[in-house]
Amino acid sequence: MKAVVYKRPFTVAVEDVEKPRIHHPNDVIVKVTSTAICGSDLHMYEGRTTAEPGTVFGHENMGIIEETGQGVTLLKEGDRVVMPFNVACGFCANCVDGFTAFCQTVNPGFAGGAYGGVAMGPWPGGQAEYLRVPYADFNCLKLPPGNEHEIDFTLLADIFPTGYHGCELAEVRPGDSVAVYGGGPVGLMAAYSALLRGAKKVFVVDRVTERLDKAREIGAVPIDFSEGDAVEQIKEQTGGVGTDKGVDAVGYQARGRETDREQPATVLNSLVDTVRATGALGVPGLYVPTDPGGPDEQAKHGMLLVSIGKLFEKGLRLGTGQCSVKRYNRLLRDLIIEGRAKPGFVVSHELPLDQAPSAYEKFDQRIEGCTTVVLHP
Amino acid sequence: MKAVVYKRPFTVAVEDVEKPRIHHPNDVIVKVTSTAICGSDLHMYEGRTTAEPGTVFGHENMGIIEETGQGVTLLKEGDRVVMPFNVACGFCANCVDGFTAFCQTVNPGFAGGAYGGVAMGPWPGGQAEYLRVPYADFNCLKLPPGNEHEIDFTLLADIFPTGYHGCELAEVRPGDSVAVYGGGPVGLMAAYSALLRGAKKVFVVDRVTERLDKAREIGAVPIDFSEGDAVEQIKEQTGGVGTDKGVDAVGYQARGRETDREQPATVLNSLVDTVRATGALGVPGLYVPTDPGGPDEQAKHGMLLVSIGKLFEKGLRLGTGQCSVKRYNRLLRDLIIEGRAKPGFVVSHELPLDQAPSAYEKFDQRIEGCTTVVLHP
Amino acid sequence: MKAVVYKRPFTVAVEDVEKPRIHHPNDVIVKVTSTAICGSDLHMYEGRTTAEPGTVFGHENMGIIEETGQGVTLLKEGDRVVMPFNVACGFCANCVDGFTAFCQTVNPGFAGGAYGGVAMGPWPGGQAEYLRVPYADFNCLKLPPGNEHEIDFTLLADIFPTGYHGCELAEVRPGDSVAVYGGGPVGLMAAYSALLRGAKKVFVVDRVTERLDKAREIGAVPIDFSEGDAVEQIKEQTGGVGTDKGVDAVGYQARGRETDREQPATVLNSLVDTVRATGALGVPGLYVPTDPGGPDEQAKHGMLLVSIGKLFEKGLRLGTGQCSVKRYNRLLRDLIIEGRAKPGFVVSHELPLDQAPSAYEKFDQRIEGCTTVVLHP
Amino acid sequence: MKAVVYKRPFTVAVEDVEKPRIHHPNDVIVKVTSTAICGSDLHMYEGRTTAEPGTVFGHENMGIIEETGQGVTLLKEGDRVVMPFNVACGFCANCVDGFTAFCQTVNPGFAGGAYGGVAMGPWPGGQAEYLRVPYADFNCLKLPPGNEHEIDFTLLADIFPTGYHGCELAEVRPGDSVAVYGGGPVGLMAAYSALLRGAKKVFVVDRVTERLDKAREIGAVPIDFSEGDAVEQIKEQTGGVGTDKGVDAVGYQARGRETDREQPATVLNSLVDTVRATGALGVPGLYVPTDPGGPDEQAKHGMLLVSIGKLFEKGLRLGTGQCSVKRYNRLLRDLIIEGRAKPGFVVSHELPLDQAPSAYEKFDQRIEGCTTVVLHP
Repeated sequence: MKAVVYKRPFTVAVEDVEKPRIHHPNDVIVKVTSTAICGSDLHMYEGRTTAEPGTVFGHENMGIIEETGQGVTLLKEGDRVVMPFNVACGFCANCVDGFTAFCQTVNPGFAGGAYGGVAMGPWPGGQAEYLRVPYADFNCLKLPPGNEHEIDFTLLADIFPTGYHGCELAEVRPGDSVAVYGGGPVGLMAAYSALLRGAKKVFVVDRVTERLDKAREIGAVPIDFSEGDAVEQIKEQTGGVGTDKGVDAVGYQARGRETDREQPATVLNSLVDTVRATGALGVPGLYVPTDPGGPDEQAKHGMLLVSIGKLFEKGLRLGTGQCSVKRYNRLLRDLIIEGRAKPGFVVSHELPLDQAPSAYEKFDQRIEGCTTVVLHP
Repeated sequence: MKAVVYKRPFTVAVEDVEKPRIHHPNDVIVKVTSTAICGSDLHMYEGRTTAEPGTVFGHENMGIIEETGQGVTLLKEGDRVVMPFNVACGFCANCVDGFTAFCQTVNPGFAGGAYGGVAMGPWPGGQAEYLRVPYADFNCLKLPPGNEHEIDFTLLADIFPTGYHGCELAEVRPGDSVAVYGGGPVGLMAAYSALLRGAKKVFVVDRVTERLDKAREIGAVPIDFSEGDAVEQIKEQTGGVGTDKGVDAVGYQARGRETDREQPATVLNSLVDTVRATGALGVPGLYVPTDPGGPDEQAKHGMLLVSIGKLFEKGLRLGTGQCSVKRYNRLLRDLIIEGRAKPGFVVSHELPLDQAPSAYEKFDQRIEGCTTVVLHP
Repeated sequence: MKAVVYKRPFTVAVEDVEKPRIHHPNDVIVKVTSTAICGSDLHMYEGRTTAEPGTVFGHENMGIIEETGQGVTLLKEGDRVVMPFNVACGFCANCVDGFTAFCQTVNPGFAGGAYGGVAMGPWPGGQAEYLRVPYADFNCLKLPPGNEHEIDFTLLADIFPTGYHGCELAEVRPGDSVAVYGGGPVGLMAAYSALLRGAKKVFVVDRVTERLDKAREIGAVPIDFSEGDAVEQIKEQTGGVGTDKGVDAVGYQARGRETDREQPATVLNSLVDTVRATGALGVPGLYVPTDPGGPDEQAKHGMLLVSIGKLFEKGLRLGTGQCSVKRYNRLLRDLIIEGRAKPGFVVSHELPLDQAPSAYEKFDQRIEGCTTVVLHP
Repeated sequence: MKAVVYKRPFTVAVEDVEKPRIHHPNDVIVKVTSTAICGSDLHMYEGRTTAEPGTVFGHENMGIIEETGQGVTLLKEGDRVVMPFNVACGFCANCVDGFTAFCQTVNPGFAGGAYGGVAMGPWPGGQAEYLRVPYADFNCLKLPPGNEHEIDFTLLADIFPTGYHGCELAEVRPGDSVAVYGGGPVGLMAAYSALLRGAKKVFVVDRVTERLDKAREIGAVPIDFSEGDAVEQIKEQTGGVGTDKGVDAVGYQARGRETDREQPATVLNSLVDTVRATGALGVPGLYVPTDPGGPDEQAKHGMLLVSIGKLFEKGLRLGTGQCSVKRYNRLLRDLIIEGRAKPGFVVSHELPLDQAPSAYEKFDQRIEGCTTVVLHP
């Protein structure tokens, strides 16, 4: 079958690889209909990880069940499903507690597994014609048959739940004001989720016009940090108080306003300044313990200079970590089905699988207004 | 009346000062019967703050109501009461939300006030014969008449609730394992609270024998970090996994194992290593945005190098800030009354008010097994 | 001053009464600008309570501060404010825990006080030119100056928070389906709140066309129970499953489908049938322990026949009780200010105070499409 | 193999039945070492259900894994395990939400399945030499090897988690006072759990001396309702206020003080009287929608006369339903392992499997101080 294969930094190819098959009675094989390229794919694409050539990318996968193992209970051939990017067993202590992003079973020696990722377990990605899904009754979310909402549903694999997770970590409640740093797909989904949850006012901080425009379209207030300090702009619009809550949808590859050099802690520290005393910060944006490309010796080991003094003085709470997609994907699916959520607006490009190489290039360089790409095998 | 007055670094004196009187209809005047010296008094005593000579110390105060303003409703002369160290109004947005440590009324321009503190508002301390308590119906917790449990009740002003708050921030639940860094009064109260809340196993990390002994006495597991890395010792005793939750009861004046130099982030980073993925950290220990005595330029501004990469990878949650005592003092009082909590074991010395100067000295130098001092005016 | 005074069943009059004055340093006097007539005023109006002739009605009050007691801190003359219908002290145990509807101070011998109510304490109502507000810093919610949103803000005294409270009791979360029984003001506010909180689908059960029309207008699904069993209609529209959550916005004066006789438990039992296993029910609708007009001996004592067997089998949770308005009024005010909530749509009539007698009559008989009336003194 | 088989009302026999075998790749076969007789077994034993002759009883099962299906991941032969009484799949919506007592997969057409129960799905009981456990990775809780804590661990199948669940439903928090109605195994476990969770004072209401004695031994306050009204006794001991929370560990087979006739709502109504305004009630005690032996026509259909008026006036919350054991069994296991919980004190008799017939008789008649029986096959 065809699959998107990593070759070397800045190069992927669509190649023939072996078609996956049932290994275990709880497996299913899914014929992929949609699979998104995610910001975290770019970390691998840019060569900032230890991804081996030959890796099949793709952790945001959706499709039709082609074959089921003999132990599968709820699913049958022909079911339309979307899979969380996290691979999880459903029965370890962390899964039972709802922390499927930290499954102790599927990636021995580490808490958490994923498809098509580096060091995330033996699970080839879904930017391919077929995907093997383990513990399928647990990992597949059923969708209504047909092809309605295809793009919206694809986003249930990662981006929409991850944005929502940012709000959950930040304890966003009805009536809150929220500052979202980062207007990429996750940031926009965080802002969109905050509004769905009843926030009174949501700011989205970025400097890319297309992103700020989309923020405005969904009812958020765009803050262009190329035009002035984001913290000051937000304080001005909140009577000097700052927001109740904040979301970091950028992570360690943040860049400051006046420089293009990475400043891995700049968003975290801006959030500490932005959010009022007693507030909470949600950090779905990625931070890593090892970053060979980090701007200094400390950053290479994930050690960042953070305003702990101010954080404490304000009594802030901080929630971090990858999204356990299964906590949210069912409720978000239902909002899509009822017509109350349409997250597909963040997708800028839909392309056939064989255009993956140029899709990666465009997405990496943010050209042609490329914000999020969905591939259709 | 007599009061403990700050003179200069490392010197306090008991002097005559003006007796407080009713300024506002909601005030009461309390005749102080017990008032503790707290670790945070030492910050001022050691001259590490901008405390002005003449400041009357004392934020852990208990006594008998001597006089009530004409607007006071629930209290009357002769009532025995203990006051949270936080001064709070009871009706600003933060107080209504339960964040009395961040009251917006009592210390204009800042969220939060306290008795006898630097930059905490115009509220003289209670290491004195009398104390003025504003918004008294809100700030006084009534106690049973008599003199039973005097020491236990005194600890309701700060230390016991602050330790309990560490558990609340760390989301300590029944069945959890918990690592408490710091075996001083707050650390011991955090460990004690974790056990009250049904923790299965609690570790207390320190290197002072008296503290480790007290930890053992209450049923916790003492970890002497002078004998080896605390993280490793705890991992050994938890099957390599670490604990479910962790509490930082040390704060920015932490010292490392092999040096006596302050390493302000060492406890935070040890906790990130100690607590397992999906866990939570509670930080009642003090961090400050400005510390002229900090060991480096960054630390002087409250900027610390923290393992954010690892924190994120583990998906940890972090709760910080001063304790809003009023959230917990009633429930803890009731546990004392019913005989189910006896926090007084942390108090090593009870002295008359006029011995305050030597009490400060002993406490500051940790001599004569001095862990916590209560003064009786 | 002029006030609406209860004379006898089905009769109120606008009469001259003594103007209120400051009794206590924490009082303010408010010049009333808007005051609503509530469904619970009708209980008194209809003579179903022990209301004494001479009682001044009105617990949903808003206006401008005219005079402040000398102990008042945050408020000043000229401030525009709205008051929760609950009178509360702010410092008793229940108030501190957020249960201001169960204040232990303002109505000796009972938990909870209100303006203008029977057995709710010595607090004359606000359907008058002036109102005395005790513990004013705690009981007044400040509003932006001017007269914008006058009607929306008036609803912050009771109806909007009470509807929202129904959702809180029913644990309504984003993605939930919700059945609201009763399309009166509280029911409509509950449905509106559920949608604000991110519910996926909200049903409103009633048989009055105007109410069902308003439900449709705000995006809810109207269920006309005069056209068939409500439970069956909702099950049909939820794949036979029922809803995740349910709200009883009717209370003990419920009437069944085929009879006009009161059936006090019919809504509760319908909710048990409507909500799926593991769900939750919120009951803001009033039930009383003594109802001389009850349809049978048991009902007269508040004893109702409830499907406890089914409730248990489904593992449902049930939350009840009057709304502690202060929990929600600030967040709901902010949603109004930001233009994200406009609850005023439930108000059908605005009238001058002196038309109160005919307003009561219309509202009681539900004539001229009268759903909610606001009086302007 | 030998198994306890229901013959007819008041008669069970130990007979040879077919040994279970692996049906599905996720099954395991457990060699049973301990299996308890539960109060709910007596409902069937007494002929109050539609249990068919031939039914194998036993839903509180523990043992050693004898054989594993080929899809089983975490378990292997020789593992010592205890199984929740609920059979659950681990991947339906309710299981994912933590409501394993309401699994939608294992008992088609109903939410919830169990071993050896009437209408609880095709799952023979474990009062037998062997037991088939479906979805075994999800349904088995691993225990330390050996035979330590055998009795304590057996209680993890039902009684201990169910008692704990009562506290969870009643929202028991540190510092609460709690009234537990019923001093049978579940009631004692509820009281024990309340104390583990930090309750300040726990009352246990019963009239059986052995039960009241055990309540006193664990630190609860026994209330003998044969000596006077329980509500009054508790109010006397709580300054007239009542308790903060209450647990109904009796259910529909409750009997009143002055009569031996069943009064199915008497405990519920006593709890409404016992618990103070703003409190919460947890109902782990069983209520059923169909009870052919009910004392009146309404009770036969699970309709009970409840003080809804008072419940509402007090603003109480009510949580009901069978325990989803998997929510609590791991944490309770860990408390046992660490020596912080020893629930085995409720077991009065340990007997070999072949004495089941007389064990049932004794337990049913509460003779020889029989409170709970564990059988060892």
